[in-house]
Amino acid sequence: MTKVDKIQSLINDFIDNQNFMGEPSELYAPIEYILRQGGKRMRPTLCLLACELFGGNIEDCMIPAVSAEIFHNFTLVHDDIMDQAPLRRGMETVYHKWNSDIALLSGDTMLIKAFQYVLATKKEYSHEVFAELCKVALEVCEGQQYDLNFETQDDVTLDAYLEMIRLKTAVLLGSVLKIGAIVAGANDKNQKAIYDFGINLGLAFQLQDDILDCYSDVNVFGKMTGGDISDNKKTYLYLKALELASEDDRNHLLNLFKMPKGRNEKKIQAVLNIYDKYNVKNIVEKLMTEYYEKSLQDLNSVEASEENKEILRDYAAYLYTRNK
Amino acid sequence: MTKVDKIQSLINDFIDNQNFMGEPSELYAPIEYILRQGGKRMRPTLCLLACELFGGNIEDCMIPAVSAEIFHNFTLVHDDIMDQAPLRRGMETVYHKWNSDIALLSGDTMLIKAFQYVLATKKEYSHEVFAELCKVALEVCEGQQYDLNFETQDDVTLDAYLEMIRLKTAVLLGSVLKIGAIVAGANDKNQKAIYDFGINLGLAFQLQDDILDCYSDVNVFGKMTGGDISDNKKTYLYLKALELASEDDRNHLLNLFKMPKGRNEKKIQAVLNIYDKYNVKNIVEKLMTEYYEKSLQDLNSVEASEENKEILRDYAAYLYTRNK
Repeated sequence: MTKVDKIQSLINDFIDNQNFMGEPSELYAPIEYILRQGGKRMRPTLCLLACELFGGNIEDCMIPAVSAEIFHNFTLVHDDIMDQAPLRRGMETVYHKWNSDIALLSGDTMLIKAFQYVLATKKEYSHEVFAELCKVALEVCEGQQYDLNFETQDDVTLDAYLEMIRLKTAVLLGSVLKIGAIVAGANDKNQKAIYDFGINLGLAFQLQDDILDCYSDVNVFGKMTGGDISDNKKTYLYLKALELASEDDRNHLLNLFKMPKGRNEKKIQAVLNIYDKYNVKNIVEKLMTEYYEKSLQDLNSVEASEENKEILRDYAAYLYTRNK
Repeated sequence: MTKVDKIQSLINDFIDNQNFMGEPSELYAPIEYILRQGGKRMRPTLCLLACELFGGNIEDCMIPAVSAEIFHNFTLVHDDIMDQAPLRRGMETVYHKWNSDIALLSGDTMLIKAFQYVLATKKEYSHEVFAELCKVALEVCEGQQYDLNFETQDDVTLDAYLEMIRLKTAVLLGSVLKIGAIVAGANDKNQKAIYDFGINLGLAFQLQDDILDCYSDVNVFGKMTGGDISDNKKTYLYLKALELASEDDRNHLLNLFKMPKGRNEKKIQAVLNIYDKYNVKNIVEKLMTEYYEKSLQDLNSVEASEENKEILRDYAAYLYTRNK
């Protein structure tokens, strides 16, 4: 059992022992439902790994780590309302299993619970953890709003897309790592280096996600592939294809993304054909690799034992080579 | 200028001087929009009055008071999505002026901002204020969920209704008063007494709201009257009418509330005719008066100067006799 396996098992045990139920059950059952699904537990894992990296006590860090996991699941529940997504992690979304009102309110409840958990951390750093959680929570909302804006915006740039995924995905990875560092009493320089590691890893992770959304096996990925195309999401793949395509292909692609949202296999295939023609998958993989390598440089700059760094390096490599 | 006027003016000045804007503007403009509308500012007013009641410094209490106001406005923004409400305080709701996605995300942002504000309070009580805010925030969600449940529930009792409005409305009044008492350093007994004052005042307030929703002048009230009837809301008025009505009237009323949601002047008038026939307005007014009087007894039991209590008594009387 690797260190990461052990940590993930601790996280799952901790979450399994939490009681998220309450009255009315309509409000709390979706919280149990989504938090018991598992998922990668990437955010609490990174949080605890950062705590260990700097010689902190993992037990002290479990509460903020789980708080971040609850927060992350809150964002999934609300995002799935906006995306009208039926499936997540191979299971029905809260929105689809119950309804949008329940998903809205259960999501609110999860956000509050995420903050309430932090109250149980040690007083010496609870204020700092709280502040970091508030800051990153606002940024994640900003990222999601940019994502929504892009739907009706014709002039989305590649840079704007990268800023959106930085806010929507990367900052939370940065913040959970920073929170682990705070709990371990790391200095500001190390807090910043591990935060930056998370940002670059997060950017690589999201680009990977965009690729997997188009090219992975639905049985492995747990979501229908082609979801982003069905939703007319202007991902890096799409924006890069627009940039590179001939006028004809460009107009074709623009028209395909003017079709109403919803699954349409012919549309998905037509879009993928254009992506393939301009080799955008490879281009995005190259950018992803650049961010991944930057993240490793950030990790190198951290003042900690090589042995501990190696654990985070392995975990980053695992995320980088994942197929779901 | 009365004490309450002064306090409300301080609150409005403070809120006017806050900058709620940020990028993307779609996320933050609705926050500016709703927080600049004013409204009664009842929650921060009660918070500051409780602080003064126990000899605290109003300035210390401004941040938690405004935090509670932001929290309250968050609940309005999300409730209006669920109710698909076009109008609030005589103005378009965020949901209607923008759209449900923006209302969802702006609401989330407001909830986070409410917590973030508390970070700026004095460390000696920020943890306690945070804990109270988390607790009440969960209760308010529970109340809203009960309210949603009642829509499809045929056996809602009068007691269940009162418990719902306790959670949805009254506990926040109790908590803001308690938070004012915490900031002022009041003892547990006084914190509890002022909390109970808020609960009973809140129950009276919500029953008043139900009555005003049926019987007030739209130009004064700021919302369309008959909104609860249009939405098939099982208010105390409705439940009491069901209890008292003849079998014919009962079935008529049940059928009227099986009509699809949406304005229908004939339906509203038919429901009001049944309410009038069984005198339910007077019955609800009587119950409201009982809660109001209980709240005054709670206030009497508080250990504070008569002069300070009189200010809260006057404010409670103002709420009790309001017409909007």
